[in-house]
Amino acid sequence: MSTGKLSVIGIGPGAAEQLTGAAREGLQEADLLYGYGPYLARLTLAAHQRAVPSDNRVEAQRARHALDAAAEGYRVAMVSGGDPGVFAMAAAVCEQIEAGPESYRQLELAIVPGITAMLAAAAACGAPLGHDFCCLSLSDNLKPWEVIERRLTAAAGCGLALAFYNPISTARPWQLGRAFELLRQQLPAQTPVIFARAITRPDQRIRVATLEDARSDWADMATMVIVGSPATRVVARDGRSPLIYTPRYA
Amino acid sequence: MSTGKLSVIGIGPGAAEQLTGAAREGLQEADLLYGYGPYLARLTLAAHQRAVPSDNRVEAQRARHALDAAAEGYRVAMVSGGDPGVFAMAAAVCEQIEAGPESYRQLELAIVPGITAMLAAAAACGAPLGHDFCCLSLSDNLKPWEVIERRLTAAAGCGLALAFYNPISTARPWQLGRAFELLRQQLPAQTPVIFARAITRPDQRIRVATLEDARSDWADMATMVIVGSPATRVVARDGRSPLIYTPRYA
Repeated sequence: MSTGKLSVIGIGPGAAEQLTGAAREGLQEADLLYGYGPYLARLTLAAHQRAVPSDNRVEAQRARHALDAAAEGYRVAMVSGGDPGVFAMAAAVCEQIEAGPESYRQLELAIVPGITAMLAAAAACGAPLGHDFCCLSLSDNLKPWEVIERRLTAAAGCGLALAFYNPISTARPWQLGRAFELLRQQLPAQTPVIFARAITRPDQRIRVATLEDARSDWADMATMVIVGSPATRVVARDGRSPLIYTPRYA
Repeated sequence: MSTGKLSVIGIGPGAAEQLTGAAREGLQEADLLYGYGPYLARLTLAAHQRAVPSDNRVEAQRARHALDAAAEGYRVAMVSGGDPGVFAMAAAVCEQIEAGPESYRQLELAIVPGITAMLAAAAACGAPLGHDFCCLSLSDNLKPWEVIERRLTAAAGCGLALAFYNPISTARPWQLGRAFELLRQQLPAQTPVIFARAITRPDQRIRVATLEDARSDWADMATMVIVGSPATRVVARDGRSPLIYTPRYA
């Protein structure tokens, strides 16, 4: 029986103060830390710890390498941005555990939650996800775009606020614009749209627009896009940024 | 100009180690701490700090009292379970800021995110919310039940996993059962349903069932209910609890 362990650890949206105590502890007890390079670069490692950075878009391979190391007896941390369970490394690790050798299923596995981007973005501008909402990836790398359109239409049609992960990338340049077009056919022109970039990081930038005016080129890969429901409110404040929230009766 | 400040602080699902550094700091700098009694009871206060506990279901009043104290110049923490932005105190505070006097809108306001129950529950059993999902309150205290049914049907019909807040209470005994009935008409009988109670607390209890077998009396007010999508997988593990996850292609 291996003494190894794999902890999939959410380090939150960026700022070190957004880590939980459990995440901090999980990172400290690891021998090996796997993850996307820029996430590992945020951490300060002890002398006995080794970082194994990898590129994005190699999640399956990264997960296998981490599982192999844990099966060999290492204490391994898989470092995930945000929350590992929301469009991040936990599902990729589970996929490999299911598909891989029995030793993967015998391993001790811990998933340590973190502050996910949509909730950090929401907190930065009020409570736009304060009532029923839907969380979607706009990436059609692994599922057909038609499925995404169906979900967008269904979710907007029944009054849910929407949070978009992976809104846009060089390889997926038109999807967010198409999503806005679809939503304009269903939602009021004045529905607020939030572009929250690099939340809690030094280069944080938040832009609020109406659905009518929202432009897809205001987003990049580091941007979380939140579209309100028809009930979402914008509260102007003198000398402060507006508060955006979805009421509890929405 | 008031020097007061209101921080709406998410303390996560229960365990102290699930607090972020920012939440811990926010709690420490407060003079007055408002919140639902049991949440305040989890905290250790310094000599200069005063707790002002209140009952649940008085969110609007609690928010006004906290805003009034901040407007008088106090440093006030509104202590919220989980994440304040997900079915918690941030929306209630924003509602009062919009409806209240101009002084409320001049106040310094910070919303400090926390680990919300659905993500703590998801982490405890794999990654059931690892792909597109919908987060709903089953409480019809503030919105008609018909709206909830419409959202349930739309979300399940387009392949979203579902996370239910407020699934059941003494005053709302039938809603969760009715939700399961509706979902049984749309989803495979084997769709996994997770009942995650008191997550990260000493009395944590997780029960996994199929939609066919799921019973509403397995939930109480402290339970988070997660219903998988048709793509959600259950991975058996010898001597360990099953892993439940929704693949990234779902």
